[in-house]
Amino acid sequence: MTDEQIVRPAPVSGFTEWLPEVRLVELAWLDEIRAAFERYGFCSIETPSVEILDALLAKGETSQEVYTLKRLQGGEDDSDARLGLHFDLTVPLARYVAQHFNDLVFPFKRYQIQRVWRGERPQEGRYREFTQCDIDVIGVDSVPLHFDAEMPRIVHEILTGLRVGPFSININNRKVLQGFYEGMGISDPIAVIRAADKLDKIGEDGVARILTTQVGLSDEQAKACLDLARIRGTDSSVIERIAALGPKSDLLSEGLDELAFVLDSLSDLPEGSICADLSIARGLDYYTGTVYEGKLLNYPTYGSICSGGRYENLAGTFIRRSLPGIGISIGLTRIFAKLLAEGLLPADGPKSPSDLLVVVPSDERSQVATATAARLRSRGFKVEVYHQADKLGKQIRYASRKGIPFIWFPPFEDDKPHEVKDMASGEQSEADPETWVRRAQQ
Amino acid sequence: MTDEQIVRPAPVSGFTEWLPEVRLVELAWLDEIRAAFERYGFCSIETPSVEILDALLAKGETSQEVYTLKRLQGGEDDSDARLGLHFDLTVPLARYVAQHFNDLVFPFKRYQIQRVWRGERPQEGRYREFTQCDIDVIGVDSVPLHFDAEMPRIVHEILTGLRVGPFSININNRKVLQGFYEGMGISDPIAVIRAADKLDKIGEDGVARILTTQVGLSDEQAKACLDLARIRGTDSSVIERIAALGPKSDLLSEGLDELAFVLDSLSDLPEGSICADLSIARGLDYYTGTVYEGKLLNYPTYGSICSGGRYENLAGTFIRRSLPGIGISIGLTRIFAKLLAEGLLPADGPKSPSDLLVVVPSDERSQVATATAARLRSRGFKVEVYHQADKLGKQIRYASRKGIPFIWFPPFEDDKPHEVKDMASGEQSEADPETWVRRAQQ
Repeated sequence: MTDEQIVRPAPVSGFTEWLPEVRLVELAWLDEIRAAFERYGFCSIETPSVEILDALLAKGETSQEVYTLKRLQGGEDDSDARLGLHFDLTVPLARYVAQHFNDLVFPFKRYQIQRVWRGERPQEGRYREFTQCDIDVIGVDSVPLHFDAEMPRIVHEILTGLRVGPFSININNRKVLQGFYEGMGISDPIAVIRAADKLDKIGEDGVARILTTQVGLSDEQAKACLDLARIRGTDSSVIERIAALGPKSDLLSEGLDELAFVLDSLSDLPEGSICADLSIARGLDYYTGTVYEGKLLNYPTYGSICSGGRYENLAGTFIRRSLPGIGISIGLTRIFAKLLAEGLLPADGPKSPSDLLVVVPSDERSQVATATAARLRSRGFKVEVYHQADKLGKQIRYASRKGIPFIWFPPFEDDKPHEVKDMASGEQSEADPETWVRRAQQ
Repeated sequence: MTDEQIVRPAPVSGFTEWLPEVRLVELAWLDEIRAAFERYGFCSIETPSVEILDALLAKGETSQEVYTLKRLQGGEDDSDARLGLHFDLTVPLARYVAQHFNDLVFPFKRYQIQRVWRGERPQEGRYREFTQCDIDVIGVDSVPLHFDAEMPRIVHEILTGLRVGPFSININNRKVLQGFYEGMGISDPIAVIRAADKLDKIGEDGVARILTTQVGLSDEQAKACLDLARIRGTDSSVIERIAALGPKSDLLSEGLDELAFVLDSLSDLPEGSICADLSIARGLDYYTGTVYEGKLLNYPTYGSICSGGRYENLAGTFIRRSLPGIGISIGLTRIFAKLLAEGLLPADGPKSPSDLLVVVPSDERSQVATATAARLRSRGFKVEVYHQADKLGKQIRYASRKGIPFIWFPPFEDDKPHEVKDMASGEQSEADPETWVRRAQQ
């Protein structure tokens, strides 16, 4: 113990970190998400945490959120000047696909589970460092509509498996919106889409005001736009309701066909979990077809837990090829932190991955304990050996505090049997390290 | 296609990124490392990528290597001022243990697999962003010697499983060095340890010169120090050879007992893979007992692939508790990148995790293809459905280019059987999605 100055350890606002028992749950989530992505044949990539700033800023949207790197002692040289931490996984994907274009097989189906960083003001659901789980399919010149339906199916499977509670994946199609507005003779449909995207925040009256005063629509046109935005439904009857509103255009027909295809393809999923919602627009300008936005139904104001859509031009910043794609991003940290805060995660479970603690009855028998543990490990179990000969009560307490479900007692003498104690039931019985199996625990 | 300026996508020096087929191998490595850590009951933690600079710099050693964060548009506020990316996983562990002291069970056994960042000049084996895989055990007031032997055993198991080629984990004990020098009457043993640590770089003559001119040893003393440093061996006969050199002290005896315990405990491992090496000192001042340093024997000049040791005072910067520990860190990126560069990894294998591609014979049969894939997925297989009805030859070529090992042919008509083609053997046979099993592939 020195008397040097103590630096008080403290959390940094906007950055999360979990205790071991919570991290175990998060790891199980990450495993489940990865398994689902791979079950559908998506390959993993990881990109560096940094991109060159010119690349990060090419879209020009998020510059104030970017963290740049600087070497503390000014020893900067050309090779790390103007590097920024990525703020999403889409810009890195675009750069990756352009850079490795000749080495990839298209349609390129990748998943990417990584941390991203944003210099945002921390608040509920907003972090400065968080983990995103993205899947995208990139095609050369085209991407089959097949994937417009596959994306929400995969996310549905994941959210169901994670037991996040009731959720809905809301689906819209930008062609429907744009085609509808064009069919009404509106000259700037993008301005209407931007206004409609504010529906959640400013309500119908607010949107109507923007549409009439800023976008220059008539009251009647504004009403039709809001009528469209009000349409929600879980089956393809939605298509008829949109058509019944009147406006017609080729783009609208195309969009309605696509939306019908997606809804039909997902009609086997539980009622209500997939929902056409004509109010969602996803502000980003680059979506051109299907768009997605997921919500936790018990927390309607919490914002989206996943989002994505179809885009025409992923990598125009980097390569002169037409690379359309479709993708969806799950906001792992957002969902996990919310359910944790609500007390809905099994966050007071084991503090250790171990299946078993092998006790060390005495120094003389420690070799037997070690050999027993090695045998159990080679059979696939996760096993701790207690770290020294000690009172059995103390060793059992250690297992109990860590939530280790079974305790293994090697024999005190060579011709005696091993025993194993089930901590949940308290039962203790003879066991053989060569044949013991862990019965299903509740 | 717009005519906007193209940003040429390029790798950033010192940051790695892999193609999907290489990433698949890296993922398998990460899985194997994690599995080994968990097999021994270590729990996972992850810490934020950043720490407060005061914490990072408390040891004062590596300040020029630290990357600090800055918000691009100067929107900095108190909450992200003076943050730096962590340059190792030890400082974050110290801060974590101090911060969560009351919530942890000791001895606290954690593993941590994360990226770290250093503003180093990139060169072979040196990266600006790389992945480290650390295990440490932290005790309150003491940590049993048990773990001094368990650490290299776990790493041995991992390196063997990863088939990195011949390697050696070299072991020394700082008490042996310090006790030996004290036994010789040397007043500043730390200065000798620092000099001896340069043996690799400047050779025996160079070290002898430092010892005589700077540390002030006699020629005879310097010779004895070099005699000690020359001792290497794989069994406890090493202990006798050290004792035979003459110097005696209580600290030396204690160190020799510890070294003998570690060597004895590991005597079941293959000859030569664990090696006492009295020349290794690990420059860092905080090691106090056992120290480790691993090497790839085919690349003796490549530097260490893992390192660690025992320390007395992990978290003195953060908390007034005595928290000794022992740990070891595997330099995943260093090993992986080296073997990749040497052509020793199976890096031209599959570009996809998929077991199977289900072909879509026609639009009419696409529902059958989707249902078949769903059935196979529910049985644990990783399955892609081809994304549209197309010529079979084209679909098979797609599987072949991605290295997908099996192709599934759903029937063209309802009463016909499914078939599966093994791409390695070319054999095609009838199969049932309910019962098919993938036979072991080479």
